[in-house]
Amino acid sequence: MTLTRTEHDAFGPVTLPADRYWGAQTQRALEVFGGHGERFSPELIHAFGQQKVAAARANRRLGVLPATLAEAIEHAAEKVASGAFDEHFPLTIWQTGSGTQTNMNANEVIANLANLALNGELGSKHPVHPNDHVNRSQSSNDSFPTVMHLAATLQLRDQLLPALGALRDALADKAQAWAGVLKIGRTHLMDAVPMTQGQAFDAFAHQIGHGIERIEGCLPRLRLLPQGGTAVGTGLNSPEGFDVAFCEALSAVTGERFTPNPSKFEGMGTHDTLVELSGSLNVLAVSLSKIGNDIRLLGSGPRCGLSELRLPDDGLTSSIMPGKRNPTLAEVLVQAAMQVMGNHTTITLAGASSVFELNVAKPVLIHNLLQSIGVLAHSVRIFTDKLLRGLEINRQQLNDNLENALLMATALNPVLGYDRVAQITRKALQEGLSPKSAAVALGFITPEEYERWVRPELMVAPGLAERP
Amino acid sequence: MTLTRTEHDAFGPVTLPADRYWGAQTQRALEVFGGHGERFSPELIHAFGQQKVAAARANRRLGVLPATLAEAIEHAAEKVASGAFDEHFPLTIWQTGSGTQTNMNANEVIANLANLALNGELGSKHPVHPNDHVNRSQSSNDSFPTVMHLAATLQLRDQLLPALGALRDALADKAQAWAGVLKIGRTHLMDAVPMTQGQAFDAFAHQIGHGIERIEGCLPRLRLLPQGGTAVGTGLNSPEGFDVAFCEALSAVTGERFTPNPSKFEGMGTHDTLVELSGSLNVLAVSLSKIGNDIRLLGSGPRCGLSELRLPDDGLTSSIMPGKRNPTLAEVLVQAAMQVMGNHTTITLAGASSVFELNVAKPVLIHNLLQSIGVLAHSVRIFTDKLLRGLEINRQQLNDNLENALLMATALNPVLGYDRVAQITRKALQEGLSPKSAAVALGFITPEEYERWVRPELMVAPGLAERP
Amino acid sequence: MTLTRTEHDAFGPVTLPADRYWGAQTQRALEVFGGHGERFSPELIHAFGQQKVAAARANRRLGVLPATLAEAIEHAAEKVASGAFDEHFPLTIWQTGSGTQTNMNANEVIANLANLALNGELGSKHPVHPNDHVNRSQSSNDSFPTVMHLAATLQLRDQLLPALGALRDALADKAQAWAGVLKIGRTHLMDAVPMTQGQAFDAFAHQIGHGIERIEGCLPRLRLLPQGGTAVGTGLNSPEGFDVAFCEALSAVTGERFTPNPSKFEGMGTHDTLVELSGSLNVLAVSLSKIGNDIRLLGSGPRCGLSELRLPDDGLTSSIMPGKRNPTLAEVLVQAAMQVMGNHTTITLAGASSVFELNVAKPVLIHNLLQSIGVLAHSVRIFTDKLLRGLEINRQQLNDNLENALLMATALNPVLGYDRVAQITRKALQEGLSPKSAAVALGFITPEEYERWVRPELMVAPGLAERP
Amino acid sequence: MTLTRTEHDAFGPVTLPADRYWGAQTQRALEVFGGHGERFSPELIHAFGQQKVAAARANRRLGVLPATLAEAIEHAAEKVASGAFDEHFPLTIWQTGSGTQTNMNANEVIANLANLALNGELGSKHPVHPNDHVNRSQSSNDSFPTVMHLAATLQLRDQLLPALGALRDALADKAQAWAGVLKIGRTHLMDAVPMTQGQAFDAFAHQIGHGIERIEGCLPRLRLLPQGGTAVGTGLNSPEGFDVAFCEALSAVTGERFTPNPSKFEGMGTHDTLVELSGSLNVLAVSLSKIGNDIRLLGSGPRCGLSELRLPDDGLTSSIMPGKRNPTLAEVLVQAAMQVMGNHTTITLAGASSVFELNVAKPVLIHNLLQSIGVLAHSVRIFTDKLLRGLEINRQQLNDNLENALLMATALNPVLGYDRVAQITRKALQEGLSPKSAAVALGFITPEEYERWVRPELMVAPGLAERP
Repeated sequence: MTLTRTEHDAFGPVTLPADRYWGAQTQRALEVFGGHGERFSPELIHAFGQQKVAAARANRRLGVLPATLAEAIEHAAEKVASGAFDEHFPLTIWQTGSGTQTNMNANEVIANLANLALNGELGSKHPVHPNDHVNRSQSSNDSFPTVMHLAATLQLRDQLLPALGALRDALADKAQAWAGVLKIGRTHLMDAVPMTQGQAFDAFAHQIGHGIERIEGCLPRLRLLPQGGTAVGTGLNSPEGFDVAFCEALSAVTGERFTPNPSKFEGMGTHDTLVELSGSLNVLAVSLSKIGNDIRLLGSGPRCGLSELRLPDDGLTSSIMPGKRNPTLAEVLVQAAMQVMGNHTTITLAGASSVFELNVAKPVLIHNLLQSIGVLAHSVRIFTDKLLRGLEINRQQLNDNLENALLMATALNPVLGYDRVAQITRKALQEGLSPKSAAVALGFITPEEYERWVRPELMVAPGLAERP
Repeated sequence: MTLTRTEHDAFGPVTLPADRYWGAQTQRALEVFGGHGERFSPELIHAFGQQKVAAARANRRLGVLPATLAEAIEHAAEKVASGAFDEHFPLTIWQTGSGTQTNMNANEVIANLANLALNGELGSKHPVHPNDHVNRSQSSNDSFPTVMHLAATLQLRDQLLPALGALRDALADKAQAWAGVLKIGRTHLMDAVPMTQGQAFDAFAHQIGHGIERIEGCLPRLRLLPQGGTAVGTGLNSPEGFDVAFCEALSAVTGERFTPNPSKFEGMGTHDTLVELSGSLNVLAVSLSKIGNDIRLLGSGPRCGLSELRLPDDGLTSSIMPGKRNPTLAEVLVQAAMQVMGNHTTITLAGASSVFELNVAKPVLIHNLLQSIGVLAHSVRIFTDKLLRGLEINRQQLNDNLENALLMATALNPVLGYDRVAQITRKALQEGLSPKSAAVALGFITPEEYERWVRPELMVAPGLAERP
Repeated sequence: MTLTRTEHDAFGPVTLPADRYWGAQTQRALEVFGGHGERFSPELIHAFGQQKVAAARANRRLGVLPATLAEAIEHAAEKVASGAFDEHFPLTIWQTGSGTQTNMNANEVIANLANLALNGELGSKHPVHPNDHVNRSQSSNDSFPTVMHLAATLQLRDQLLPALGALRDALADKAQAWAGVLKIGRTHLMDAVPMTQGQAFDAFAHQIGHGIERIEGCLPRLRLLPQGGTAVGTGLNSPEGFDVAFCEALSAVTGERFTPNPSKFEGMGTHDTLVELSGSLNVLAVSLSKIGNDIRLLGSGPRCGLSELRLPDDGLTSSIMPGKRNPTLAEVLVQAAMQVMGNHTTITLAGASSVFELNVAKPVLIHNLLQSIGVLAHSVRIFTDKLLRGLEINRQQLNDNLENALLMATALNPVLGYDRVAQITRKALQEGLSPKSAAVALGFITPEEYERWVRPELMVAPGLAERP
Repeated sequence: MTLTRTEHDAFGPVTLPADRYWGAQTQRALEVFGGHGERFSPELIHAFGQQKVAAARANRRLGVLPATLAEAIEHAAEKVASGAFDEHFPLTIWQTGSGTQTNMNANEVIANLANLALNGELGSKHPVHPNDHVNRSQSSNDSFPTVMHLAATLQLRDQLLPALGALRDALADKAQAWAGVLKIGRTHLMDAVPMTQGQAFDAFAHQIGHGIERIEGCLPRLRLLPQGGTAVGTGLNSPEGFDVAFCEALSAVTGERFTPNPSKFEGMGTHDTLVELSGSLNVLAVSLSKIGNDIRLLGSGPRCGLSELRLPDDGLTSSIMPGKRNPTLAEVLVQAAMQVMGNHTTITLAGASSVFELNVAKPVLIHNLLQSIGVLAHSVRIFTDKLLRGLEINRQQLNDNLENALLMATALNPVLGYDRVAQITRKALQEGLSPKSAAVALGFITPEEYERWVRPELMVAPGLAERP
């Protein structure tokens, strides 16, 4: 049997579990929305704690909240930020589109914690009232989007950007290590002309470098917060300067520099900037798909595939083909990319549904966005550590391929002209010859000349092939 | 301190928590993929239990598994199907694209449970071996997609289809109740000509009725299972007739009629049918968006909006605007629709990534698909029960709107012709007149004639307006 | 200098090119929307002609349009349907969301053609008035969506379904031709166990067969037409029975069986069924991606790729690598699939934007849908005719691969058990041995036993490998 | 009868129309791909002309092309850039994924034009050879993506960015003009608290301002060109320094500052930056949806809607409801946004399909991207000029709404506390009272106090309501 207590709000009495710190509105929300499905990530709940700390400080500083109450609220909010009260946030994301119930939940938990600290009673709303004090100078409508920006910023800083930095560096290491390793390049999946293994990984490193730039390019707008707009963006019931005071406090709390959005209406009524960020993650997903797929294909085999790369053994195998090794971590990466691209659709739809003074698809939007950041960070990290660092080249295969390649004769274009080279490659292909044999057989060139002109090591940079 | 035990597989020794029923491959997978993020839903794990029950029965029947072992496996698998061992499935969805690790997990847990029941030892793989016996005649490559189809089919049957049936019926009830309630119709969001409130809800009911048909239209293909294809689709290492025996057993276990996919290759190498199902859910999301948004707009106000509908009070309110009531459950519905549309992108991408004999985006695909089904079922259910059934009309507002409407004069087209009616409405609009006054002022008609011709109740069906 | 004429509508005078058959509203629309960008396909314009033919017949039959006028309208509309007046439809798709301007355009062109035939004057609206007569018993709001359904149905029937039938048959031919050709199967892109080339193409044929079924599954709803709903769905200003009479006439005109949508509101206010159809095309795009990509990968090389298939020479080559051959038609197919998947997003968004009694994203929706149908039909046709029919296998490569394959030892599972086979394959992989040598070296089996058990031709169907 | 001529390439003779300047490979492509469907926009063809001008200059400067030939090529390429030869580019976008055939087309047309100018013969490839000279130091693989970046950059500069600047300014003008106009704000579509009409339009202006920033944020990467990578990215067959010389020449030709991509491989093998740009357009589409939809909703009516805004009359009306006025240009804007969001899916898919050294979804990618830019520019322009500038407010309705609004009592929170205000609004709502009457009836406040505290003009900025 669960012990219960009874609280009252403007709608009447509500029965709650006695040992939970949430209050009447949270309990009503639980009953209306049920317990189904996804919950907000801990990161979002903790960010709510930080937001309430900063709001209390700003309220105190501007003289609209007595110091005793403000301090009690701050301490309570810090506990929420620390993760110690996650289980007192029972609501699913499938709630009102403003996230109001989760803001109410935060207000109620913090009020209760503060009241207990001030020797008040659970559920008494006294001396700290969840709305009049914890929510002072705020609305869900500005607090929730502030928390959305905050949680995304911190998760980028703490999770995704470090993971991407490590990936880029590991790719650059491979690029350097394999700078001199010749291989056949492929276009349209077909054998083309030589390149180095390093050049391929250098391209990957550039992709990720740009990916980091793209995310960083969103930060100036991501660090603009709508806090201070209260109900519709005007700042009704907040003191002048609250937005600035809040951002200063939050910057101190988090170590990130936040500033007020000059149009609170833009920051509450729309989430263009979060759609923008999702767009940057979408590009990253595109980049990671490319990298993951190339590595899967180049590692295919071991005997009937391209087999130019060898993936480290991760100890996992097939349930029917014993000992079979698969590119598991590359598949994780590629699947994560698919998730992010789909989330981007949801986030775009959520962003596009903005109407009037409030976008009311906030919960689904931020849930998908934080999932995107989280799964990218995670999959990039394990891909880097457990696959990429252990990746090796199959030098034998690389060399065999180079020797067989048909289009080496492309190096002869400047000597023989396009049309004669076309004859060489067609003859070689049709008769199963090497391009050298075909070129000589056609009388276009002597074997010695061919050897002098067609040298893979001179085909991997501009100008080289011109100079022999 | 956690007690551990040590197991061996072909790759060497592995240390596991002593009280967990999973084995070496699951433990390795945990270490490779980490614990981050989303897990498969219980529905999928339970479906795996059912799949293993059916496989054991088929193996026994075809004589490739001794009765003692088969029975022990069946009983163990039934326990997994019952949900009693969910916590022994610790892997995230961010694993190999074939779902192999989760199939291995099922094999290992069931082998261990069976061995214990047969007085064997945990981790001994004896007398029941996870691969040689539990996985007998199977591969992850045919078992996992079979479970995907199974879990989706059952979740549709048990959750979504009943919820949709209830929604359609509730909409039809409203359509009937409001069959005689006149209101202004709107096109381009602009006032148009009269209709009944019932007609609008009848359209909603048709949308959902079609939605049910669309989902049911997928079932014939959804009930085709690739089980029996084993590693690549050929059925290597399975006895002839395994596919049929399996489907019969599974049909008996689940009460749904499954049959073998005539092309196992199609069922393992592609997931077109799951993309198809997601497409049907996407249409449903589109329908629900329309219904949710119309109700939000028609319920807007209470004093500065359209205010033609009144939503039931759910006891939830704003954190700053006390007593404010919002269409919370309609917002849940609309957000759920956004999730489903985004999941559809992920599922499409996952489907399109099929290569050769195995689609390796299975975990991300099925996770998104089951989430779509689940969130639709949930949001439809609470929307129906807590919003729709309590929805009321604001008769005063409906009548006021009808009286003010400008385009009532459209009913005069057959009498006066299009061009003269255009003059009437333009005059009425520009001079702030009623269309009747404008028509009379222009000398086109007498007040009596107008009254006889322009009667809202004769404008809501074909033929009526012709007959006065 | 262009000759002009002047017409009047309720808004005043309008100047038009003298030799154009459109009228005042079309001209105004041209001036408002400009000439930028995409136009409706001829198929849509022609369908509008057919719709007006059927409407005139129904109006005549129900006695609301004099026979002389009705006949003149019918003849004029037939000319529009024939394609002879395409250049008199100058509007872009970037117009009102109801498609009103294009309906007006059709009304005006047909009225003018009819008037000229009846010795009336261009632009006189006499004796045939574009709204009072051509548009009799109709609105843009029911006519345009009727035309959307009509154009899609006919384009499926005349273009896409025949192309898909030919593709499926050509795939089935290959499946049969290569039924006995053994090859290595691949899962996770890695070498797996044997199968036949025919089995792969049989799976493709199944995919397309299902694709046809999916499209046909939409037809019952696609053949429901909202015509008869007029302005908002009620049928105001139309005679009773107009919907039935119209559908009968249209069925006669087109040879397709259309029936009235029982909820005109559903058919005008929403486009769920067109989203559904787009969903079916999306699955098809997924299938075609798989087929196109598999063929590209299996045809990769010619010397450093998988090289199991040989694509026919299409005479096209690289601008720098003379004689290089690329899988051009497979790339067309895959790109077409991408277009269709993106169009599906647009169509989903357009469908989800339905509000009240009219979806006003009709032009963008139908334009994307008809483009999807058209580009699928075209790319499937050229892929089938110019690539697929000429596709050949590289038997040497197929055999070499089979001989090298590591996991042939999987056939030993029933004999040796999973764990010992795992040792075999690991040893073979690590030491570069054939699985046979590894098995023998480990003392698990004699060479003769290996040969008896591990035979590719017995590994491509269930039961075979059990019986030696 | 069409006159023909015969040309030869490495594959044999080809028959072409005598009066066309394209050559053998273009003609073969026409026959392989057929004439179906979409063509590249003129902007892309013209950009190809500019690219060939710059390449010829760089080749001349680096001494790999004789001055006579280079000059002739430049002049010919300038003609292509001018648009005078658009009809000599007959290929559809449904071609090889590298865009090779369109590059070949450009090479052939320019070679022919140059040869004619040098008194050579059409189709002679002498003295100017399409591959050896026009395509000198280039491949389709670096030229086509260079042209993609170039065309997008110029279309942004010349079309979209000016249109957005004008939109932002027009929105800012409205924001200023309506800075003092009070209105009711709405959250969840429900009446909330007061704001000004100017604040809403200021938020729109901020959205567009950010949209411009986002596009400009892509330009640094968009101006990195892969030219100089030739076949696979190495620069084979190009002289050292070609990339720099090319970019300098192209910058001079276009007035935009382009620089070489430090990783040609990144620029040819991937199109991450174009996916990024599409992501920025996607955000813009989201912003424009919001603006367009808000204006549609606020302009709804004229008598049964929100009616706070009055849209200018565009002279267009309904085909059945004469004189009805619809928000046509807002619907164009919203539909354009849907197109862009769908194109973004296609572009994302095309980007994600990159494999090895060449992304082969270039034609579909750039076609969708340029369509997105073009349709956004067009729809923004007509929306700004023909709707936004003529938009007016309905002051009567704005005032009536403010007077009726229920949640004005929110201003009493700081005085009465949240719980008592909740009682006031509930009572007012239930009993149909004004909030003032309810507040007084509940005995919480006197009428005078209420008047002093609750003043809309003091509710539209922070701090104001605190001070009376």
